[in-house]
This record gives sequence, structure tokens and C-alpha cells, in this order.
Amino acid sequence: MGLIVQKFGGSSVANAERVMNVANIITDTYRQGNDVIVVVSAQGDTTDDLIEKAKEINPAASKREMDMLLTSGEQISIALLSMAIEKLGFPVVSLLGWQAGFNTSSAYGTARIKSIKTDRLRAEVDRHNIVVVAGFQGLNKYDDLTTLGRGGSDTSAVAIAAAMHADRCQIFTDVEGVFTADPRKVENAKKLQEITYDEMLELATLGAQVLNNRSVEMAKKYNVEVEVLSSLKRVPGTIVKEVAKMEKMLVRGVTKDTDVARISIKKIPNNPGVAFKMFAKLAQKKINVDIILQSVGRDDTKDITFTVSKENADEAVKAVLDTFDIEESNIVCDKEVAKISVVGAGMESHPGTASKMFEALYENDINIDMISTSEIKISVLIDIKDADRAVSAVHRAFYPA
Amino acid sequence: MGLIVQKFGGSSVANAERVMNVANIITDTYRQGNDVIVVVSAQGDTTDDLIEKAKEINPAASKREMDMLLTSGEQISIALLSMAIEKLGFPVVSLLGWQAGFNTSSAYGTARIKSIKTDRLRAEVDRHNIVVVAGFQGLNKYDDLTTLGRGGSDTSAVAIAAAMHADRCQIFTDVEGVFTADPRKVENAKKLQEITYDEMLELATLGAQVLNNRSVEMAKKYNVEVEVLSSLKRVPGTIVKEVAKMEKMLVRGVTKDTDVARISIKKIPNNPGVAFKMFAKLAQKKINVDIILQSVGRDDTKDITFTVSKENADEAVKAVLDTFDIEESNIVCDKEVAKISVVGAGMESHPGTASKMFEALYENDINIDMISTSEIKISVLIDIKDADRAVSAVHRAFYPA
Repeated sequence: MGLIVQKFGGSSVANAERVMNVANIITDTYRQGNDVIVVVSAQGDTTDDLIEKAKEINPAASKREMDMLLTSGEQISIALLSMAIEKLGFPVVSLLGWQAGFNTSSAYGTARIKSIKTDRLRAEVDRHNIVVVAGFQGLNKYDDLTTLGRGGSDTSAVAIAAAMHADRCQIFTDVEGVFTADPRKVENAKKLQEITYDEMLELATLGAQVLNNRSVEMAKKYNVEVEVLSSLKRVPGTIVKEVAKMEKMLVRGVTKDTDVARISIKKIPNNPGVAFKMFAKLAQKKINVDIILQSVGRDDTKDITFTVSKENADEAVKAVLDTFDIEESNIVCDKEVAKISVVGAGMESHPGTASKMFEALYENDINIDMISTSEIKISVLIDIKDADRAVSAVHRAFYPA
Repeated sequence: MGLIVQKFGGSSVANAERVMNVANIITDTYRQGNDVIVVVSAQGDTTDDLIEKAKEINPAASKREMDMLLTSGEQISIALLSMAIEKLGFPVVSLLGWQAGFNTSSAYGTARIKSIKTDRLRAEVDRHNIVVVAGFQGLNKYDDLTTLGRGGSDTSAVAIAAAMHADRCQIFTDVEGVFTADPRKVENAKKLQEITYDEMLELATLGAQVLNNRSVEMAKKYNVEVEVLSSLKRVPGTIVKEVAKMEKMLVRGVTKDTDVARISIKKIPNNPGVAFKMFAKLAQKKINVDIILQSVGRDDTKDITFTVSKENADEAVKAVLDTFDIEESNIVCDKEVAKISVVGAGMESHPGTASKMFEALYENDINIDMISTSEIKISVLIDIKDADRAVSAVHRAFYPA
């Protein structure tokens, strides 16, 4: 028995029935002899509804007032969830972010957790109250409410687990855990029992939208054991921790990311520092560059190809034109691409992984456009129309039925 | 120019258009060179909607969690109103009850303001920010959110005006001020320019639902000049203050209260302490008794008649039966009654007021059932079917067309 932190997202508490379901999960955990701290997001569409109300009045509202507005969403959900737990006859207390001790940076809308003053949390746990905390929010040095930005509630939960030295942080979602591929699309996709933080980070970045990246980074930093599991089916999920037990399978997952655009630039003068200048320009515009490929052309020029997210593509092209004095026709931006990746720790010592992946794609007539490898992943860029077929083919290669 | 506190109720900010209207009133006051602190309630039906959500989950939710839930309502309205003021280009900051320094008693749902720590309010006013404060709410000694109960936002506004030594506290409503009678029902009803705190208290108690009583009591205690005025029409309202300029008219208003039940008990043994015992029992059950009439019967018994609010009537009858060993047939409870009152300071030195009222009722064939007088009011109990006719007749007697 111990201290468990449980996090429930907005869809898990979208209506009265789901709130009661969540209350049952929490009180079952408590009844088993655990202390429980719950982190919860705003109900279903609450946040979107509030944003809509704000836009109607002032589309250019300050971020401070947006945070004042949006933090009411979790306030409603912690109160309702606590009432549901009261109904089941268990001792419970709800706490807003500031009551739970969340001190954040001042950046409204994208605040970072600086520290958690755990006095109140500790006192409530010592009284064996179930504590229901508003995720996504905190208080800055001006005593003003802040929000943590996208996926903030995951981060709130991991931060509490770290600060309170909880035995486990359970993140409840609408999937049963982390799968070797998207189970809705790939037959034979398997749920992983365990996965390391780094593998989870790669999977999250690659579009397996289970856990927010910031929360995984924080879990890694403070060595918090995280379990991803379903709020609808009562089955064990996937445990994310530092040294995962080596399972037989090496590849943890096959993912698809279609939020990619490829930008190719031809005939750049082959001077030193040319690539540096361009990528510095992109960094300055806060555009993340993913795969990079450079080749020397036939004459004294070179070609550079790189990928960015779709929303940054047009701005990236503009940045390139600003940097070099080249013809616009020498730049090609292709948004009809997808990135397929296999992720698994220890991959670099198994060269067979890459060739197995390439073979699967070749046998299915799927052309590889770019390749990128790291210690724990191999990614290829292909035509978007082949994406789903590619995931299935690669997955089948590593997990034969 | 000075410091003005302005309070807007839920219907004044019910939608985007009304929020913009209120923002215009506020910024006009600011533009005239005043500092402005605004107190605002939850939008329109927000509170009712939240109560509905709570009931669906747990009709017996704790008051602490109800307060956690309901205080989100004003949080939304202060954020939206501040965004509207930002849109008009004025400096503004929204503050929750606890940020504005409201310390309250611990009684969730019916907390009383204990003090206001004005540091933050003062700092924002010194910066010439328009300050938008969430009404109805505060923080108790456990660092938990509380609500002040019905009409709480009026009290919040008056309390801020008192603590900040504001020059005036303007309470915006959907009426233009305090009238000599309900202007929707009585022809020739006149708006009062001024009225004393005591007169206002009597009028509020008697059903002229303009200002919450607690707020008037607080205004009287701290000598806060209150103006009741319309948020829709830009005309001067009614000023409530200690020594109102004596206007020609003595009677400040004629009111109707239909939330009355009359309980008559016959043949109570005529022992000493009999009335005391009964009213002690009623007080113990927190039932407020209004008019009392006692008469000695023909034999050695007496009759007692008193009025209570309709919702307390049945419990009052039960309390009477618990106290005395009398036949149930000796108790009559009549809910088809109404109380008509005239209010005006200095009335006790003008005996003509009562006779003028009674004459008006007599001439209209309206039977008087009970009479009660105080220093500043005369009330009569009549049949409910005559109520509106009675108000018109009495008003006409004091304010001939």
C-alpha cells in the first residue's frame, strides 16, 4: 500500500455518469489501503466553450485574463468529482492549483512549474482524505493564476507524484496503454507492459499521443513511475520507468506522423557556414527542424532537404528565401509526406532492425524518401498515401501474427 | 474626482452585449477622472446551471464543495468583463475574492466578511488600474473558498467601499432606483432621490427587492453612501445615506409582501409564560415571527395570532402543537394573506399617516386583519386577493395624481 497519484483527462469527466465512474476507480484504489491524490482536467468541452465566450467579447484578450477565465474549468471539475466521491461515502477535499502549492513562472498560458509547496497536500493526505487537485494551473509570484499550457494536467500529476514521493503516478486515458502501433489501424498491435522514459518520449514525439512530453521529461528527471491505463476498462496499463525489464521484443512501437512537410533547396552556393546560417534563421523563428539531409550537387553547389511540422512549412520557406539569394523555383515544399518510425532502446546495437524495416517497405513497393536514425529510433519519410500501409507492413515484420 | 465602487448583478452581464454595456459604464466613470473598483456577480443563469450539475451527481453535496463549485461563476464573469474593458483600451485587472483580500467566517454557503486586507486592491488602484473583483466570495481561515450567501455581491461591494473609504458605492440593477411603490403595478409611482438606511432596510424587508439587507446594514454601520441605479438607462438613481435631505413627502414607499402566512391559535390556557414558551420554541427552530397579536378570550383562555413566511408556516404549526396540549382544530393557518406597508422616517410623530392609510383601505372595501406599527412603518395584513388594489389605493392617498 502507498501513495498513488491518479490523473483523469477532460473526456473522463465529461458528464455526470463518467464522473461517477472515475469516483469509483478512485475509491476502489483508496479502499485497497492506498492514499490517493487525484489530478483532473476541465470537463469535456468546457475549455473550448470558455475560449468561445472570450472570443465573442475580445479576440485579443490578455493572457492573464484568459488564464483567469480558463482556470475556472478545473475548479468546476474538482468540485463535481469531490461531490461524487462524497456520495460514495469517502472523505475527500478538492484543492485548486494554488491551494495544492503550485508555484509557477509568470508566463500566462505557458507557465512552468517552479516548485510545489506540499504542506497542504501533506496535511490532507495525513488525514487520509482523498485529495482532488485542479490540474493545468498554478500561481505566479504576483499571486495571479496561471495555466501550464497544452497537456498541463499530465505535468501537474507527475509533479505532485515527484514532490510527494508517490509510489506511482497513474495517467488514465481512453486507451489501455502504449501499443506497438495504433490498435485502431494495425491488426495485431500489442500493448506493452513496460517502456523506458526515452522510448516513451520518442513515441510521444512521433505522434502516439498518449502522454504529454513535458510530463515524461519530468517523470524521467524525478524518476517517477508512470502507468498509462484506461479509465473505461479495468486492466493493467503500460508502465513507464527508467530500467524497463528487457522483454523479448526489441521494437517498442511503430508510429506514423503526418504532421510533416519536406522542404528541399537546390543549388545553394557551397560556402562554409551556409547550412548554419539557414538553421540559425529557422531557430530564431522558433521553427523546429527534424530530419536533415545534405548532399553535394554536381557543380559547386549543394542541396539541403529538411522536414518541419506542416504549420511551420510556409514560414520556413520564407526564412530560406530571406537567407539565400536563390531562385524560388529551387525550393520545393512537399506537404504530402508522412514519417514512419520504429522505436526501441538498444536499437543501435542491432543493425538488423533497420534492414528489416527497409525490407518490409521494399516488399510493399513503398519508396523511402529520407532516413533518420537515433540511438532508439529509425524514421523514414514516405509518401503520405502509403502511410497506413507502411505502418502495417513494418509492424508485421517485427510482430508476425 | 475620487474612488467609486460599482456593482453589477448577474443579469447585467448575462451575455457578451451586456458585458460590453457594463464595460462602457465603467470606462465612462474612469474617463471622468475617477478610480473605479467593480464588483460583479456570476453571469445570468450560471449559478443555477452549476447547482443543477451538482444535484445530478450528489444532491447532498457538502457546502464546502458547493462553494468550490459556485465561486467559479464569478471567476468567469470577472475575466470576461476585464476582457471587455481591455478591448475598450483601458488598464484593468481582475481579482478573485481572496486576491482582493476578503477574509470570511468559515460557514460555507453563508460566510460573513470578517475583514478585507486591502494591500492588493490599494496597489492596483494606485497604479490606476480598473479593478474587477469577484463578488459573493472570500477565503476562510483554512484557506478554503467560501460564499456569502444570497445577495452577497451587494455586501462585497459595500464592504470594499467601506474598507477603501470610497466616495460612493453604486449598485446597478434593472430598476432606476427606489420607488414609492412598484412602478410596474402602481401608476404614478415616484423615484426617490434620497432615502435613509433605516427606511431602506424596512423597504427591503417588506419586499421591495432592490438592495440586499445585509449590505444596507453594513453601509449604515460604516456610513457608506450607496446609490441604487439602472445599468440600462443612464439617469441618476436613489441615494441611500444617513441624513437624507427631508423631502416634502413623508412616506417613502408603499410595499406589498405576499410571502406571509397567518397562524391563529385559540383557547390557549391563560398561564404566565405561555406566549414566551411558544415563541422560544419558534426561535429555536429559527422561524422568524413578524406581526404578533394577542387577545384574552371570553373564558380563562387567550388567543394568539402571528405571521411567519409561507415556507415556515407548516413547521410553525407543528411547533405550536408540540408546545401546547390543544386541539388541532383550534389552530388556523391562512396562507392567502398579504402585508401592505407604508414606510417613512418620522412617522411616529405624524399620527395622521395611519388614519390616512386605513381610510384609503376602508374606502376601497378592503378589510384589515392585523395591524403593526414601528417608528418608521405601518403594516396591515389583508386578504391576498386585495393586495394590488390596496397598494394602489394607499399610494394614491399619499401621492395624489
